[in-house]
Amino acid sequence: MPTTYDQLRNADTTQLRAAIRGGDYAGHTAGLGRGFLQANVVIMPERFALDFMRYCQRNPRPCPLTGVSDKGDPRMTTLGRDIDIRTDVPAYNIYRDGQFSETRRDISALWSDDMVAFALGCSFTFEHALQRAGIALWHIDNNTTVPMFRSSLETVAAGPFSGRMVVSMRAIPENQVKRVRDISRRYPLAHGAPIHAGDPAEIGIRDIARPDWGDPAPVEPGHVPVFWACGVTPQVAVEQARLPLCMTHKPGHMLVTDIAEDAEVPVLPPLTNTETNREIMR
Amino acid sequence: MPTTYDQLRNADTTQLRAAIRGGDYAGHTAGLGRGFLQANVVIMPERFALDFMRYCQRNPRPCPLTGVSDKGDPRMTTLGRDIDIRTDVPAYNIYRDGQFSETRRDISALWSDDMVAFALGCSFTFEHALQRAGIALWHIDNNTTVPMFRSSLETVAAGPFSGRMVVSMRAIPENQVKRVRDISRRYPLAHGAPIHAGDPAEIGIRDIARPDWGDPAPVEPGHVPVFWACGVTPQVAVEQARLPLCMTHKPGHMLVTDIAEDAEVPVLPPLTNTETNREIMR
Repeated sequence: MPTTYDQLRNADTTQLRAAIRGGDYAGHTAGLGRGFLQANVVIMPERFALDFMRYCQRNPRPCPLTGVSDKGDPRMTTLGRDIDIRTDVPAYNIYRDGQFSETRRDISALWSDDMVAFALGCSFTFEHALQRAGIALWHIDNNTTVPMFRSSLETVAAGPFSGRMVVSMRAIPENQVKRVRDISRRYPLAHGAPIHAGDPAEIGIRDIARPDWGDPAPVEPGHVPVFWACGVTPQVAVEQARLPLCMTHKPGHMLVTDIAEDAEVPVLPPLTNTETNREIMR
Repeated sequence: MPTTYDQLRNADTTQLRAAIRGGDYAGHTAGLGRGFLQANVVIMPERFALDFMRYCQRNPRPCPLTGVSDKGDPRMTTLGRDIDIRTDVPAYNIYRDGQFSETRRDISALWSDDMVAFALGCSFTFEHALQRAGIALWHIDNNTTVPMFRSSLETVAAGPFSGRMVVSMRAIPENQVKRVRDISRRYPLAHGAPIHAGDPAEIGIRDIARPDWGDPAPVEPGHVPVFWACGVTPQVAVEQARLPLCMTHKPGHMLVTDIAEDAEVPVLPPLTNTETNREIMR
């Protein structure tokens, strides 16, 4: 039966994925599965996968690669024991020849033995850390989507993948900017430190009040606009590459993993149980 | 003309690579190019490259991927402006069908349009940081090679690549172990935090006095054996995969890059010059 967001607030990651997989929940995942890494998802035919991995490796801030499946295998065993990438994301966007085609709640019918799934870290992780540190984030307090902008920064191309870096903006009190940088830098799997703080024009943003994606957010007096590399960057690169078929998560509707947000590496330990493996999880 | 190690002690990274490329230096790179990331090198035919990247992504502690070339392109432009991977490593080990074949100083004759080069971070980086923190490392003070052991920890397989994790051991004073962990954890591009500290048997090491690679090092009274994931791990995985042709650096003879050791990401900024790009380098 349908499950509400509030009913899932305290669900663990296995329960969350079960509700999504069962078709009982198709909403956004912000604030759910607290303490665990959530991921952007990009799925494509294997012949493009090597260049896409190169693109992620060369652009680690917008594209922090946290998992990759085997060819045709919908499991992502390094991110969760029971993940099925065909069903465990609340909503998927389907692109054909680089054009948005439709949104689906399940991609089992589109999955094939040729598909490879990628998971990339997302900003929820450092936002949770900033909130824990008592730093207010306007878009969360006002229940809007963070403003995102196409910057003038070119990413490093790989094969058909290229384009400008998309950045998200959060207005931070002047005296907190250094602290915000130090905190978010601890999360390289979630875009890491800001790429810019201050004059939006320096990174090619003309009008801070008119984001290219998401909702406008004010930069109040005494606040500085702080910009982070954004997970929309690889989606734009994938659209520009005009892949015959590409499937991504619907923005805000992420894959919830079993990786702790503060894990040093985004890999579940092997199914053994030594001190070492516990250490690997730390 | 031949150049000695001492003559290169203060050379910058461009001068270092020029001496190596010109055939004037073929020695080890430990202690050279201080402050800049050095890298393990693995070169293979492209048809194996996607699985090797998967292997690195799933085993980031032994295989911290810091760079990957385009197919057939010997440059590694994200790691250095002038790198030619065919000539810029002091010595290469050549493997044919998984067997060591020969050592070469230049692989131009073996390079082909089908080759892909990978660079992986190495332990020199965190060793420099430990030394800067005043922590003595026996193998360096005694000019020996760090002891390395085949552990009982299985890596996460990808395609033909699998095997046990190889670990390096450094004996650390008991009261310094936590500090050593905190310092090395800051260098995820260089194996990061230790994977184990204490009883070697817990990770399958029977005799700490008899390393599988490198030289023995004592664990003196009041010291704890501390183990880090080691860059020999991917070399073993590549040997076991029995690739028809695979080329690696000769141990200790690394690729010297232009990436600062404390860089957040192993990518040179695009050739522009904004605050943002300087920030990216920080």
